[in-house]
Amino acid sequence: MIAPLAVSMGDPAGIGPEVIAKAWAARDAEGLAPFFAVGDARAISAVWSGPVARISDPAEAGAAFSRALPVLNVEDGGEITPGRPDVDGARCALHALEMAAGLTRSGPAGALVTGPVSKAQLYQIGFSYPGQTEFVAERCGIAGENAVMMLAGPTLRVVPITTHVPLASVSGLLSVELIVAKARATARGLMRNFGILMPRLAFAGFNPHAGESGAIGREEIDFIIPAIEILREEGIEATGPFAADTMFHERARATYDAALCCYHDQALVPLKTLHFDEGVNITLGLPIVRTSPDHGTAFGIAGQDRAEPGATIAAIRLAASAAERRAAAGA
Amino acid sequence: MIAPLAVSMGDPAGIGPEVIAKAWAARDAEGLAPFFAVGDARAISAVWSGPVARISDPAEAGAAFSRALPVLNVEDGGEITPGRPDVDGARCALHALEMAAGLTRSGPAGALVTGPVSKAQLYQIGFSYPGQTEFVAERCGIAGENAVMMLAGPTLRVVPITTHVPLASVSGLLSVELIVAKARATARGLMRNFGILMPRLAFAGFNPHAGESGAIGREEIDFIIPAIEILREEGIEATGPFAADTMFHERARATYDAALCCYHDQALVPLKTLHFDEGVNITLGLPIVRTSPDHGTAFGIAGQDRAEPGATIAAIRLAASAAERRAAAGA
Repeated sequence: MIAPLAVSMGDPAGIGPEVIAKAWAARDAEGLAPFFAVGDARAISAVWSGPVARISDPAEAGAAFSRALPVLNVEDGGEITPGRPDVDGARCALHALEMAAGLTRSGPAGALVTGPVSKAQLYQIGFSYPGQTEFVAERCGIAGENAVMMLAGPTLRVVPITTHVPLASVSGLLSVELIVAKARATARGLMRNFGILMPRLAFAGFNPHAGESGAIGREEIDFIIPAIEILREEGIEATGPFAADTMFHERARATYDAALCCYHDQALVPLKTLHFDEGVNITLGLPIVRTSPDHGTAFGIAGQDRAEPGATIAAIRLAASAAERRAAAGA
Repeated sequence: MIAPLAVSMGDPAGIGPEVIAKAWAARDAEGLAPFFAVGDARAISAVWSGPVARISDPAEAGAAFSRALPVLNVEDGGEITPGRPDVDGARCALHALEMAAGLTRSGPAGALVTGPVSKAQLYQIGFSYPGQTEFVAERCGIAGENAVMMLAGPTLRVVPITTHVPLASVSGLLSVELIVAKARATARGLMRNFGILMPRLAFAGFNPHAGESGAIGREEIDFIIPAIEILREEGIEATGPFAADTMFHERARATYDAALCCYHDQALVPLKTLHFDEGVNITLGLPIVRTSPDHGTAFGIAGQDRAEPGATIAAIRLAASAAERRAAAGA
């Protein structure tokens, strides 16, 4: 039995509070493990009329969970208006993330699920990380570049080898070392978090038709093929590079456990085409389990009872199953 | 009532002959308009035991179609072995393409459907075009770069603005002029071939998150946004640029008639993820209707009765409906 999960609310003016509340409301139907929200309890009440139980210690969450949404309150003053982000809200989101990450790192929380934040607002208060992933990694004593982002849906898992960089710069960022490092972390992550004993990794080519043996670009020959050879020598089942457009239909997806993609959209386009409302971001390479719903703050629909909790429910479920698996393995 | 469609067999050692024969066998169930195959009749008999009617004029195809697959024979000597391409086969494929295109251009055939060819083999016999599309365009008196490739599936149509070029070179190839030209041809093509009176075009961003206002790349600001503004001034309904990963799920697809994508995989990955066995390539900007199944020669499975005719059936159906629409419009 793992400790209750910590779910940071993200920006209080975004849809984070609403989807967390809706996830709690669906706890029985969805069979969710006990969790508690970390953030400003007023952000929940502003968008939801269900029962809230303020707690002061994660240990109280288990008992409260069946009758109310447990909230570990983090308040940073200021008014909360759904859809209207401000710096007070960003400060609150950051403190909530810090507390939730700390509680997971130190033990009282079984895993970390992070709600969506507004980077534009966070940068205004001096936040200097590319995203929550790197912040959490550092709090865990891991360099941000060693944390690997995997997006997981019901029928597809993808890992982008490069992430939020201009597409024209990707070719210059690829290297055999980078690809090998991401692939090793992916293989380990599939074993630890998903219980896959012999993970099968499929690599997407960078160019159209995977370069046609060099006729349409050389990144496959220079970087991807040598990386695959190194991984195979290490005993990792690595295949490809495949023409990216042939990798994501149903029959193809059945042949691997994760697709390693060269750039953001190569990974995210198929994932979100198939699983737009169910995508979970799981960070591999950390000493803790960390997941998040694969969507943003959606300020445009905040406070209108229109937000879908599916991705948050999936993020909570995956966090719980990964934490249980790790606990059982003594990892 | 349009004239029978000309279906070129493609490489006789590929799966072209088999999928054409299977499409004919399914003609009643699929409600296909009369068509005739153009190519070496021996390539059909090598993989299929159904009835063949050799014809010497497309006008004979209509009467023969109900009882046998009409074949306009094009023979270039040499043995035919499914799965074993050679230069004789390439010569035959090229002659069949030339004849089918000519018959469509001059009238006896109602539309052109092209089977898959082997470019590697064609290059050996001096073929100097990037693909069949440019060859057909030139035979129609159109410069190859003015022919626009659209991939169409049951729930998605995509147009790649650049095609078979190294991904690292795409940024340098994009221009406002190129994007506007492709979009105009797409809008016209949607009207003429699909009967869409006010086509809605959605543009994909080039960078992750469509560049986040320039924070992750400037191609959106420098090329895509100015192109969209020009198109809107012309009265074309153009929207975007959107983050590519948010454009292809079911709800998003319902908001446009074609997605304009910056590069090959951005267009082909979602199309083939969703419609791997049903994708049709239709060339816009030509005086004739030309479609083809969106797959290759598949030499590896040729002659094994394993090829799926779905894409060829869809290509024949789309060619017929587009030709009928154009004929009705007097275009």
